[in-house]
Amino acid sequence: MILLDGKKTSQEIRDEIKEEVSKLVESGKKRPHLAAVLVGANGASITYVNAKIRDCEEVGFDSSLVKLPDTVTEEELIEKIDELNKNDEVDGFIVQLPLPRHINEKKIIEAIDPNKDVDGFHPTNVGRMALNLPGFVPATPKGMLELIKRYNIETNGKHCVVVGRSHIVGSPISILMAKNAYPGNCTVTLTHSRTTNFKEICKSADILIVALGKPEYIKKEMVKKGAVIIDVGITRVPDSSKKSGYRIVGDVDFDKVKDKVSFITPVPGGVGPMTRAALMQNTLLATKVW
Amino acid sequence: MILLDGKKTSQEIRDEIKEEVSKLVESGKKRPHLAAVLVGANGASITYVNAKIRDCEEVGFDSSLVKLPDTVTEEELIEKIDELNKNDEVDGFIVQLPLPRHINEKKIIEAIDPNKDVDGFHPTNVGRMALNLPGFVPATPKGMLELIKRYNIETNGKHCVVVGRSHIVGSPISILMAKNAYPGNCTVTLTHSRTTNFKEICKSADILIVALGKPEYIKKEMVKKGAVIIDVGITRVPDSSKKSGYRIVGDVDFDKVKDKVSFITPVPGGVGPMTRAALMQNTLLATKVW
Repeated sequence: MILLDGKKTSQEIRDEIKEEVSKLVESGKKRPHLAAVLVGANGASITYVNAKIRDCEEVGFDSSLVKLPDTVTEEELIEKIDELNKNDEVDGFIVQLPLPRHINEKKIIEAIDPNKDVDGFHPTNVGRMALNLPGFVPATPKGMLELIKRYNIETNGKHCVVVGRSHIVGSPISILMAKNAYPGNCTVTLTHSRTTNFKEICKSADILIVALGKPEYIKKEMVKKGAVIIDVGITRVPDSSKKSGYRIVGDVDFDKVKDKVSFITPVPGGVGPMTRAALMQNTLLATKVW
Repeated sequence: MILLDGKKTSQEIRDEIKEEVSKLVESGKKRPHLAAVLVGANGASITYVNAKIRDCEEVGFDSSLVKLPDTVTEEELIEKIDELNKNDEVDGFIVQLPLPRHINEKKIIEAIDPNKDVDGFHPTNVGRMALNLPGFVPATPKGMLELIKRYNIETNGKHCVVVGRSHIVGSPISILMAKNAYPGNCTVTLTHSRTTNFKEICKSADILIVALGKPEYIKKEMVKKGAVIIDVGITRVPDSSKKSGYRIVGDVDFDKVKDKVSFITPVPGGVGPMTRAALMQNTLLATKVW
């Protein structure tokens, strides 16, 4: 079994970006600039945004954090987005989700200029991805593709089973893995809560991508020998043996599954860091025109 | 076996649209208006465009045909598209494909205002479809969904196998059939030229959607007993017994397959007329704001 080490691989990517940024700056170009809009004071959101800002610092991007109170109106938020759309200093920006209930997330996402939408959530970017046009691919699927590529995993003609049909993970990765490309050219089966004979389908997967949100749901007997396992799940479960009182687990029963498969992502340290690195890649991409 | 009669069903749809248009006009609203842009004199394109214009007449839409010589430049074509984008009389329009080689189709499609893109080929509409937002769904997948719906075919939890990953048929229908909706909620497997054990996968399909372009490729032994078969293929094969010297066949070996399955589309008279009707539905939709 080979561990798909997202921590190590994402460090390589950040190092590469850092080098490219140095060259950009040396050649007289501006530093890429990522802005993040944070509405309210959701603990997880603050943590995520801070991590993104730290990543920017590490790779040499400029960054700015726009903090808005959770009483901000939809109109005010859209005004702020318009400003960022028009601000030539800012190459790309994200609006950290979730947003307060009184704000329509879809409307907010559609207000972002697709050419600055480094989260890749705008319909135009989703369509561009589906149509094989240049654009921003959402960070989690993009990070997974990068991991597959950097470990030279064969995908051509393989059966890829995707578990979960969310707009930001399952659905896009199922589109991407079916494309005539590398990684890609898989026969792709997209499964979800309505799927019958789920175990059997999982077991038929050469590549199993799980984005389910159910801790350790995928058991050893549900996995084909020699399969490639990519685990997007990340859940805190109580663990009295830890100082924090919890541990982080994925959707796959890692300890039991790991010796049966050819490649597997750990949780944490697999898809998570790759997602963060992919946002940096998208931001760099935002400085280039297509 | 129940024949999925696209001819009859599309007539029902056109009748419904006709009635809705009468009501619109009675209430003082304008008639929906579809424009078609035809570049050059490709025989098939002329036939298709004329059929669309006839459909408009039948349902009571206004229509206009913009004919351009195949020497038109990309710039001139884009100018014409801009005019149509700005023309409030025109609710929706299509640019008949294929275009001459010197014109970049992707660029042309992206020049169309997504809110008038009744073919649903613009990236923004593709993304809207993938994200479950209101928008234009391409006519062939839309017509298939309508056929499934009007025959009350159960889709929830079924295994839907899609053969072919084109941007206008296979890829979008695979996305649509996996959605949390009716029709939808299928476990969807998307197959293509790189798929291994293809026959076995076809045979596991409760719903088999074939958009392959290979006449009578899907044989009886590749189909599950009781399956639903939707055949998007349409190929002329030589047939000396016909006056025309050819007959139209689908991708499925209809005569041998039909008695084994629960529902099947004929070719011709299945998906084809549904596609035409779906364009009329999209044009009517274009008169409404979302």
